[in-house]
Amino acid sequence: MAKELTKRSENYSQWYNDLVLKADLAENSAVRGCMVIKPYGYAIWEKIQAQLDKMFKDTGHSNAYFPLFIPKSYFSKEASHVEGFAKECAVVTHYRLKQDPNGPGVIVDEDAKLEEELIVRPTSETIIWDTYRNWIQSYRDLPLLINQWANVVRWEMRTRLFLRTAEFLWQEGHTAHATKEEAIEETIQMINVYAEFARDWMAMPVIIGSKTESERFAGALETYTIEALMQDGKALQSGTSHFLGQNFAKAFDVKFTNQEGKQDYVWATSWGVSTRLMGALIMAHADDNGLVLPPKLAPIQVVIVPIYKGKDEMDAIYQAGEKLRKEIAEAGFAVKFDHRDTHKPGFKFAEYELKGVPVRLALGPRDVASGNVELARRDTLEKKVYPQAGIVDVIRELLDEMQQNIYKKAEVFRDENTYQVDTWDEFKDIINNKGGFVMAHWDGTAETEDKIKNETKATVRCIPQNNPLEEGICVYSGKPSVQRVLFAKAY
Amino acid sequence: MAKELTKRSENYSQWYNDLVLKADLAENSAVRGCMVIKPYGYAIWEKIQAQLDKMFKDTGHSNAYFPLFIPKSYFSKEASHVEGFAKECAVVTHYRLKQDPNGPGVIVDEDAKLEEELIVRPTSETIIWDTYRNWIQSYRDLPLLINQWANVVRWEMRTRLFLRTAEFLWQEGHTAHATKEEAIEETIQMINVYAEFARDWMAMPVIIGSKTESERFAGALETYTIEALMQDGKALQSGTSHFLGQNFAKAFDVKFTNQEGKQDYVWATSWGVSTRLMGALIMAHADDNGLVLPPKLAPIQVVIVPIYKGKDEMDAIYQAGEKLRKEIAEAGFAVKFDHRDTHKPGFKFAEYELKGVPVRLALGPRDVASGNVELARRDTLEKKVYPQAGIVDVIRELLDEMQQNIYKKAEVFRDENTYQVDTWDEFKDIINNKGGFVMAHWDGTAETEDKIKNETKATVRCIPQNNPLEEGICVYSGKPSVQRVLFAKAY
Repeated sequence: MAKELTKRSENYSQWYNDLVLKADLAENSAVRGCMVIKPYGYAIWEKIQAQLDKMFKDTGHSNAYFPLFIPKSYFSKEASHVEGFAKECAVVTHYRLKQDPNGPGVIVDEDAKLEEELIVRPTSETIIWDTYRNWIQSYRDLPLLINQWANVVRWEMRTRLFLRTAEFLWQEGHTAHATKEEAIEETIQMINVYAEFARDWMAMPVIIGSKTESERFAGALETYTIEALMQDGKALQSGTSHFLGQNFAKAFDVKFTNQEGKQDYVWATSWGVSTRLMGALIMAHADDNGLVLPPKLAPIQVVIVPIYKGKDEMDAIYQAGEKLRKEIAEAGFAVKFDHRDTHKPGFKFAEYELKGVPVRLALGPRDVASGNVELARRDTLEKKVYPQAGIVDVIRELLDEMQQNIYKKAEVFRDENTYQVDTWDEFKDIINNKGGFVMAHWDGTAETEDKIKNETKATVRCIPQNNPLEEGICVYSGKPSVQRVLFAKAY
Repeated sequence: MAKELTKRSENYSQWYNDLVLKADLAENSAVRGCMVIKPYGYAIWEKIQAQLDKMFKDTGHSNAYFPLFIPKSYFSKEASHVEGFAKECAVVTHYRLKQDPNGPGVIVDEDAKLEEELIVRPTSETIIWDTYRNWIQSYRDLPLLINQWANVVRWEMRTRLFLRTAEFLWQEGHTAHATKEEAIEETIQMINVYAEFARDWMAMPVIIGSKTESERFAGALETYTIEALMQDGKALQSGTSHFLGQNFAKAFDVKFTNQEGKQDYVWATSWGVSTRLMGALIMAHADDNGLVLPPKLAPIQVVIVPIYKGKDEMDAIYQAGEKLRKEIAEAGFAVKFDHRDTHKPGFKFAEYELKGVPVRLALGPRDVASGNVELARRDTLEKKVYPQAGIVDVIRELLDEMQQNIYKKAEVFRDENTYQVDTWDEFKDIINNKGGFVMAHWDGTAETEDKIKNETKATVRCIPQNNPLEEGICVYSGKPSVQRVLFAKAY
């Protein structure tokens, strides 16, 4: 069958690409580095969006929309931000095309050159803080708790579907506060929201922690991250939340009158997750047969496949199948009855396995006669026969169990692939040969961090939240260290 | 008070601008022609989106996402499309900035020039049909019923918030069909979906019809439109649905094998509505006091405002208000209890009137004592006292009634401002002095259409659906005509 995947053990990277394409999640477009998110992939993204949006609103945030374009000069206003973001980006220089006088087609109209070039937003701190200046006068205008769902563009040279694309979809929260404490609280609240979403919806355990200075967001005083472990032993940064201090307020002159009547600069945070989460979802759970979707994010939670020969058999099965579909739909589950006569049951089984549909019900003539149905669960691939009566209760319990089970499996994998390492030889051996999370002592200098990265490609993923202090010596430099930090190779 | 609006009768255009700004719907950004949609405006847009999205899904469509950028050459592939869309647009020519060697700031890196310029999508037919080529082989792959929610850019010279902006948000449906008949059916289905949404959700009566050849979408064989009448007597095109024939399939070589085993080009439709609907919503219903929102699209349907002096009064009122808030929220309505002590009741009354909140409950010490509450409805500004007990039922009925009433008021206005006109003098008089919809005979030629437009700025808005045939003579040319068509000045 054309849909067969490369095995993970043969070529993990090829397996991932195969899966994204063959499960109809996304594909490369004709435009370098830009992806097309196909309907099935987008349906998963919509489920991710809906839940995150609810969690943002439950914590008091509102959505808004800011311009796609940012004047070039804005990037220079915050010194470290320009270093991080204004380099590889899409630059709009003209606003008109005209007929080519020398042949068919259109050419850029040189008379329509912009006075100042516009950058397609790689992130929106600058344009948003430029706007906030007019929205904030007094402490009564604070906090300002705003989120935006948007597309952004970063001109990446090596792209991979969902993981690193020139254009991607994301949300970016941008909040403004009267005090430093409140801004820090918000930063931490949002990284916890992301971790909760990863755990309860994506069934993905993550390590919450803070970034080292060299891995921080350009312009941030502190960056919190959630780091997940993929099945090939590499880390995937899945969401970040930044405490920006007063840097952007100073760069864009955003002051407010505080309760004592004094002027002060506003405190800022920003936080975001992107379509990269789709990559995380795939690589955390999928197997050699295809996607394994946590039931809470599955666009189709239950599929019913009829097995029949000829029209007579089909009629009876159709009735039984339709009755099941209705019952399951009325109970609030996303169910599909695939009674297409253009494809064989075997094809459909493989198709829904590939697409990670949690529960498959197969319904043949014997099932109709006996009042039973065969149920296959995607996570363990186990099959079992149940009476049709009461199947909704079975499904309800099973989907809950699968959501837990998928999480536990990922957690066991993560724990089994987390190592406490005390020597440089062991560090290199694990990073190069096994992969996984390595907890090791580090002397806290950017210099050592850099050297470790150059020699092994491993980076400090984070200093875990509530990390126990423990005296030790840096695995690389032998200098004193007060705590272990989390190292890994990363996407 | 700073929030006072210009009156409609004084300066309609200024009234609109004032209202958009003062009701916190949107504002101009630092980027020419691009708007910031503020949280309150965006909350209305989210309600519009949610309902349309449901209606699209109920009619079998799925969402997907296609690239923001389109290679320049794509626009030349469909001959009439390039004329309509590839002119005023944002052109990306470079993909990198670098530090300015001559000073602070960044400049465009001339070494990073794209081989082919990229256009920020003004609409996505070309990139989508280029993608569909690989998705469609057989009639089994059809129909393809896809929608995209996205931002698009058209470099408009004269912009107005929501009505005409360089960047705007929209949805664009792009469907592919095996037969002409099915594609036409889809085109009509979707204009009817828009009309139903306008009527039942926006409380806005519209005329459904088809565009004349000169007003059609660039590349379409037929364009259907819904036209609404604004309070200043101008029409606002509120949604369009296009039958594209095989034009894009031929331009991008999208063929399929039909049931007879023969190759044929695929039939196409596209349809869209945008943040322009926000402009329509404002201008259809708002008054000199501010927005009037149909309850179904109001982010806040009920606001409770306490009226008190000092802390003692406040404590009792707070308890009663909070009890009301809970009851109303539990009944499923969007309710806000505004107990801020930083603003006076009068300020709050004006604020929520300006923002078009349908129902306002005012709660003072006497109300708490008597168990009553004063209710004000936004559409008629009537006030009436009700017992607090049973207020939820009052609100439920009232919101329904207001939704109907707002529609009826707009319908009466539309009908009173629709004229059957038979002479050129009368035509000019009404168009120039009264405004409104003018039903007049037209000879069916683009030449006459052009002359009428040049002399009066009125255009044929549409040939109404199920238009009765009626012999007559063209108001302008005196030539024979078979039907009246709908003329108006338009946004």
